[in-house]
Amino acid sequence: MRLPDAVGVVGLGVMGGALARALSERGVSVRGWSPDPAEVRAAVEQGALASAAESVEDSARDVDWWIVATPLSALPEVFRRGAASEPPRVMDVASLQGPALAAAREAGMGRVHVSAHPMAGSERSGFGASRSDLYRGVPVWLSTGSQGSEEPLARAEAFWTALEARPLRIDAVEHDRRMAGVSHLPQLASNVLARVLEAEGFAPGDLGPGGRDATRLAASSPELWGDLLVHSGAEVAPLLRRLAAEAEALAGRLDAGELDDVKAMLDHTRRWRTS
Amino acid sequence: MRLPDAVGVVGLGVMGGALARALSERGVSVRGWSPDPAEVRAAVEQGALASAAESVEDSARDVDWWIVATPLSALPEVFRRGAASEPPRVMDVASLQGPALAAAREAGMGRVHVSAHPMAGSERSGFGASRSDLYRGVPVWLSTGSQGSEEPLARAEAFWTALEARPLRIDAVEHDRRMAGVSHLPQLASNVLARVLEAEGFAPGDLGPGGRDATRLAASSPELWGDLLVHSGAEVAPLLRRLAAEAEALAGRLDAGELDDVKAMLDHTRRWRTS
Repeated sequence: MRLPDAVGVVGLGVMGGALARALSERGVSVRGWSPDPAEVRAAVEQGALASAAESVEDSARDVDWWIVATPLSALPEVFRRGAASEPPRVMDVASLQGPALAAAREAGMGRVHVSAHPMAGSERSGFGASRSDLYRGVPVWLSTGSQGSEEPLARAEAFWTALEARPLRIDAVEHDRRMAGVSHLPQLASNVLARVLEAEGFAPGDLGPGGRDATRLAASSPELWGDLLVHSGAEVAPLLRRLAAEAEALAGRLDAGELDDVKAMLDHTRRWRTS
Repeated sequence: MRLPDAVGVVGLGVMGGALARALSERGVSVRGWSPDPAEVRAAVEQGALASAAESVEDSARDVDWWIVATPLSALPEVFRRGAASEPPRVMDVASLQGPALAAAREAGMGRVHVSAHPMAGSERSGFGASRSDLYRGVPVWLSTGSQGSEEPLARAEAFWTALEARPLRIDAVEHDRRMAGVSHLPQLASNVLARVLEAEGFAPGDLGPGGRDATRLAASSPELWGDLLVHSGAEVAPLLRRLAAEAEALAGRLDAGELDDVKAMLDHTRRWRTS
């Protein structure tokens, strides 16, 4: 699989930092920009960037791919600025694709843009938490908007395959509906569980390995998730209500001593989880 | 720290298997019994047992410690049978200590018994899932009943310290109250989340790393948890109701577009989880 010669990256956090590292390791010339100068310096020093871009506009100049790895809420402004440099192909790596496609279209880049969502990340933040193998073996959802065409999509597939990820095409609306379930609901379930444990007077150090895993996502970035929930909140709310109803029903069964029903439920979810 | 010369172990699953492995690695002569003959054979072949006991009674004969690592519901019967062999010191490794202490007392072993709960385990089951370093660095809660005395408790501390675990004394009632929060609630929250995801048509393979962690406990043994919830259900039910109320409240905030409140909550749980 062939990788491009030159890539511009905006945002050097967990996602953008990992991309810069993985591309540079494979000989791609990466020019990067971040609002945090210390992050840019660290990325250059550690060989994740060939050079520091002077601005967002500069990062999109003379590159084969321009990749925006900022929080979702920054996409409209960053796309608008980068569009002036007319990059031939543009990707974002945001966790929701409807708003990303809309931002690219509004910036006049709908024809050259692909939204790419790798199912990877970290509850930690920043370049220091990024690692070059983040995308290895990871599914990457790819979608384009109404103006999208085959060429950038096929090239995006080759791009992620070269990074040892598993690109998969999807419709953006379907993608965002799925994420409300498989990503945003587990995130908020973890926050809600953490809240109850704290209210009951427990500390994270009181937890065993299972409780630590179940609350790990509660450490995720409020900024990143606030950004996503602006868009997905209406889809996640009914799922949270369903979670609440299931928890209530289970509490009722425990109070009534209906342990056979409880065991049947545990057995059912075990079969689902190990399937 | 000195370990005993000879230990009997009943139950060779994740907990008992790990004990047998860790003790044998340190030169202790371990005699073991399991209702599953294949598990006993595997443990002898892999050097986790010096010898196979012929019965529960036999496993408690001529040992310094007799350790029962069965599900909680089996303790009364196993204790009753082992008591005939008059082991000088007895431990269980059950996840609830009130019922374990009661079972030892009823078997006439209250004076020589210590309840030990290591904060370790696995969502998998059986000897094949046991590993010799399971207890390394792990807190182990120790309690005794009303007939308990200092001698077995002090020896239990030395025992777990020699296995590189961290023994901690606790009152059994306080222990069981804590476990309802830090262990049983995360377990059931994971089951409830898995149930909603399945009902929404998702498969475990659709999840990212965060969703996989949040549902990992849903794969735990229904038998083991059914056993525990017979005793702890009444304490866990109000915690589940609190979880349901928090999930409902969050859904309401998302529907009302109160994103600042949501972000404040996410920020709060992040600070708790990383504290």
